[in-house]
Amino acid sequence: MTKQHDRQTTRNLRRAWIISIGTELALGQSVDTNAAWLARQLADLGIRGERHLTVADDLPAIRDVLRQAADECDLIIVTGGLGPTADDLTRQALAEAAGVELETDAASMEQIRAFFENRRLQFSEQNKVQALIPKTGGAIENTSGTAPGIFIALNGTPCYALPGVPFEMKKMFTRDVLPNLQAAAERVMRMRRLNCFGVGESDIGAKLRDLMEPGRNPGVGTTAERGVIGVRINATAATAKAADALLDETETTVCSRLGKIVFGRETDTLASVVGEQLTARGETLSTAESCTGGLIAKMLTDTPGSSAYFVGGAVTYANELKQQLLDVSAETLARFGAVSESVAYAMAEGARERFGTTYAIAVTGIAGPEGGTTDKPVGLVFLGLATPTGTTVREIRFGSNAPREVIRARAAHTALNLLRLELVE
Amino acid sequence: MTKQHDRQTTRNLRRAWIISIGTELALGQSVDTNAAWLARQLADLGIRGERHLTVADDLPAIRDVLRQAADECDLIIVTGGLGPTADDLTRQALAEAAGVELETDAASMEQIRAFFENRRLQFSEQNKVQALIPKTGGAIENTSGTAPGIFIALNGTPCYALPGVPFEMKKMFTRDVLPNLQAAAERVMRMRRLNCFGVGESDIGAKLRDLMEPGRNPGVGTTAERGVIGVRINATAATAKAADALLDETETTVCSRLGKIVFGRETDTLASVVGEQLTARGETLSTAESCTGGLIAKMLTDTPGSSAYFVGGAVTYANELKQQLLDVSAETLARFGAVSESVAYAMAEGARERFGTTYAIAVTGIAGPEGGTTDKPVGLVFLGLATPTGTTVREIRFGSNAPREVIRARAAHTALNLLRLELVE
Repeated sequence: MTKQHDRQTTRNLRRAWIISIGTELALGQSVDTNAAWLARQLADLGIRGERHLTVADDLPAIRDVLRQAADECDLIIVTGGLGPTADDLTRQALAEAAGVELETDAASMEQIRAFFENRRLQFSEQNKVQALIPKTGGAIENTSGTAPGIFIALNGTPCYALPGVPFEMKKMFTRDVLPNLQAAAERVMRMRRLNCFGVGESDIGAKLRDLMEPGRNPGVGTTAERGVIGVRINATAATAKAADALLDETETTVCSRLGKIVFGRETDTLASVVGEQLTARGETLSTAESCTGGLIAKMLTDTPGSSAYFVGGAVTYANELKQQLLDVSAETLARFGAVSESVAYAMAEGARERFGTTYAIAVTGIAGPEGGTTDKPVGLVFLGLATPTGTTVREIRFGSNAPREVIRARAAHTALNLLRLELVE
Repeated sequence: MTKQHDRQTTRNLRRAWIISIGTELALGQSVDTNAAWLARQLADLGIRGERHLTVADDLPAIRDVLRQAADECDLIIVTGGLGPTADDLTRQALAEAAGVELETDAASMEQIRAFFENRRLQFSEQNKVQALIPKTGGAIENTSGTAPGIFIALNGTPCYALPGVPFEMKKMFTRDVLPNLQAAAERVMRMRRLNCFGVGESDIGAKLRDLMEPGRNPGVGTTAERGVIGVRINATAATAKAADALLDETETTVCSRLGKIVFGRETDTLASVVGEQLTARGETLSTAESCTGGLIAKMLTDTPGSSAYFVGGAVTYANELKQQLLDVSAETLARFGAVSESVAYAMAEGARERFGTTYAIAVTGIAGPEGGTTDKPVGLVFLGLATPTGTTVREIRFGSNAPREVIRARAAHTALNLLRLELVE
């Protein structure tokens, strides 16, 4: 990295603009996840991601937004537009915004060649453009892909351009950008998130109303997704320690008001929390899924190390598999139908017995949009939980207007929450 | 809806700002998917989502951005900040930007009460604020949640405020906003997306270089996610028919150059395309998953109607389940290890036989971050495909630096693609 890079970032950084480049983003063909991740990293340093902007692959538009950003904020982070194809224009826009030419960076060219050789891929002419860097800027090595990042000062404002591919961007930010920003941070904002399940957002809002007043420090806010309510707490202070003390105090208040609906913090999921509890108890789990079709198993195995407590399970979409893998009787299926309390019960018991686990979760329901009847509408789901002391079934109606993905995700979350409550009680 | 609503939107609409409200978005605690969805809807009407902006739950900041947007664009779409809690400030910001007071809307109040009654939930005081609407604006009924939307003209620019919950927002936009915008559209932009799998983005870029020149109509761009490369084609013309003709021509060129790596269009996934092929052939599929832990089954069952060809499968994280459910022999497991060509082969054959399906997909590998060795590094995955004419196994190395979720998603996609190629050949 150039010397300029180190010098520029020592100025006071408070307000950042996060700029996402890509026609696929502007036209809505892809969803940008980079801006959110970067905003969170910056907030930890007390730098507010004051504005997120999305701009298409359009050279004048990118250049103009870069120039405006250079005038109006203290730090610019750009993602995307560094790829090898003709619609990748970030390099050119940075050069134009800085009023300089592009030059081939010899070290970057070497790294790109090596990347292709290591993977035994053919190095094409097209990939050479990725080694072009504005003359007054510096390249940032990409250790997980081909596009190097770029650091450049625009009108005195430090600007980092990172790849659009999320895992390359995260790695480059963490390794090469974060250390420079840490050195420049002044006031610290610290965040915490408590994750809740089991009641609605307005119920939580009513219980935390005084804490959610605008201007309070720490600030408290809520957000809802697939039935999981996140309670965010953000504290600002001169030091991380002071901010953490403020967070602790508010967190204690929130937890005492909300009780056991709080299931975890930060990136904890219902699946990861259930996993921690099972690990601590040395117990195991299996799944028997019909309408969720593998989603609960997928959620459980998203967590590294889940093989310690999750042995696996059966995805039994067809009735024959319910019989074959879970010992649900043909008579039960015929008499009550696949979506019934009796079948959920039999699936949970069958999984627990056949797979030899401490607990088993079973789900059968109608995820829609087709398949509903007056008696059994879309959104009707039966959740079975088999435990060493017995098996219970819960009937839930998620509303027949809800999309398939929402019904599936809520059913999976509710099933995991039943087990969580069983484990904490 | 007010008369003003109809009148205002008949002006010429070309450039829209999409404003997403929420501290959880600005601080990066949630990812905004609404802006992308809205941008896509607007593009279909020839309205460019020129800028996406994200702003925190901060009254002056929201008000100022609304005022700026009213000066600089033709249409404002706001999402979020309409909830019942104290941090929901969009109503107030709209009123301040318009310079008017908030008033209770009687019809909205009635709808909110009815929503709670229908679900046998308690109507709390806190929910009453959701019926407040700026005096010069109108309420837009929410048929799937409690927060009504708001229409208001800001300095003559039409502004629609919609709920932040994606499925409520989408429903309201489609039912109540879209018809008004359609009436005002002038020049049409039509988009198409071709989905490809099996080669890198730069290879595709090299083959489509001339089509990707800036300024070309239709424009062509690429984007990569989890190994799936999207080729976007956007055409602008006076009529939808003319734009579609332009799209057809470029699509034909793209398809002839890329051949069978093009697997689908628009929201087609590898799983949905495999499903269509199986349906057409009257054939069936089962899965046997170790490291993907249910992800392939989940992807298959994301598609409505998948029960027609997907009977289910086994998630066999533990070796005992590989034996019990898939007839993998203890000897094979002991001799070659769970992550091996032989086990992938046996899992695929076992699933096909036990579950009685035409095809079976099997995956065993090391998703990491732990569990890798020199011989079998993180990212090593064996994919088995059992067919009526025999069983094959493919070994893939995804790179030990890749995150767990990337390895799992790429393994799942690659497995589905193996089946797709088998079906199209």
